[in-house]
Amino acid sequence: MRAVIFDLDGTLVDTVYGHTLAWQQVLAEAGLPIEGWKVHRLIGMSGGLLTQAASHEIGRPISKAEEQRLGKRHGVLYKKLMPERRPLPGALDLLKHLRKAKIKHGVATSGRRKDAKKSLDALHLPARTVIVDRDDVERAKPEPDLFLACQSRLGVKPEECYVIGDAVWDLLAARRAGMLGIGLLSGGYGQEELYQAGAYRVYSNPAELLDSIYQLGLRAS
Amino acid sequence: MRAVIFDLDGTLVDTVYGHTLAWQQVLAEAGLPIEGWKVHRLIGMSGGLLTQAASHEIGRPISKAEEQRLGKRHGVLYKKLMPERRPLPGALDLLKHLRKAKIKHGVATSGRRKDAKKSLDALHLPARTVIVDRDDVERAKPEPDLFLACQSRLGVKPEECYVIGDAVWDLLAARRAGMLGIGLLSGGYGQEELYQAGAYRVYSNPAELLDSIYQLGLRAS
Repeated sequence: MRAVIFDLDGTLVDTVYGHTLAWQQVLAEAGLPIEGWKVHRLIGMSGGLLTQAASHEIGRPISKAEEQRLGKRHGVLYKKLMPERRPLPGALDLLKHLRKAKIKHGVATSGRRKDAKKSLDALHLPARTVIVDRDDVERAKPEPDLFLACQSRLGVKPEECYVIGDAVWDLLAARRAGMLGIGLLSGGYGQEELYQAGAYRVYSNPAELLDSIYQLGLRAS
Repeated sequence: MRAVIFDLDGTLVDTVYGHTLAWQQVLAEAGLPIEGWKVHRLIGMSGGLLTQAASHEIGRPISKAEEQRLGKRHGVLYKKLMPERRPLPGALDLLKHLRKAKIKHGVATSGRRKDAKKSLDALHLPARTVIVDRDDVERAKPEPDLFLACQSRLGVKPEECYVIGDAVWDLLAARRAGMLGIGLLSGGYGQEELYQAGAYRVYSNPAELLDSIYQLGLRAS
């Protein structure tokens, strides 16, 4: 294996609970009152897909314009609920290790660059780091586009890539991209949910992944 | 089976994600930065036990006075993050059904009465409803005290009681009380986590429990 593609929220930064509460409040304001745990299990999809899933759940269709308005409102509320972005334990060390060991890696997030910027800043990534976001592709996760765009920019084959993510959407998109998925518990899913979605391994957080990295057979390029 | 004892947060009202974010922020302010998913998995314990678990995780002892200060700060922040308390789907109907069918039931929460009041109000419980909270017992969940106090006030035997809860702490306390636990996904745990903690059945939320209530062999008294 020659490369690692990271999801961002819940995988490298500890933001899933802020996103969940923000989306729940935005959807409730819009007359789409969804249970917190159901919102939680939708995080990691693009905002558009998430609002469509909520509208399906409630049985009230929403327009493209409303979808975009809700996405913007989420951005505002999320910043208010979670003004600080904290890297997950081991995230900075893991990225440092990959750079030092010259193992190719990148970040692929369903978030828009504007919304993800603060989280990316918290990771102190060198300017050369490959980052792919919602604005770079037509369709976000669970479509494979984000991971394929990242892999292509890393210059490796899909079957040489691990995808590291905390949500079943990462694992679904990884499978569709022909990559091996690794789950992290740091987004709040249960271990079995991640294995059942196809995770090859599940670790608690980036720190445990780094401790166990010899299990992954990664090599420099 | 002759009685049903309900947990409150995540079981009858949709408050777990608000509690999680509030605790995470309170603990971070106090120099105990805990990952969101780890805080999430501690919700349902008393605030005192939760802060002790966080202090153990970080490796910094905290005093009884600090523990109480953090509990108060959580109450304030929680109200700010989650000004409205929303009953989970089916919660009101399920309680109505139990009253109509004359099946004994009560609520047993690890929260203090002051903090739980707004959530209890959202359930429109008749004044006669048996409610046991943190202020009624010496030790909250996962000790069995809350459930035993509730069962005693309902006038049934422990082995005639179901405990309905969303957290492994409910299921642990139920086992220690000699009661059968039923898990709900509405607090955000995965299904297997609840079964592994000893749930006899797992349902999505109170609505699915009500739809399946014939599976539980409850009788009136």
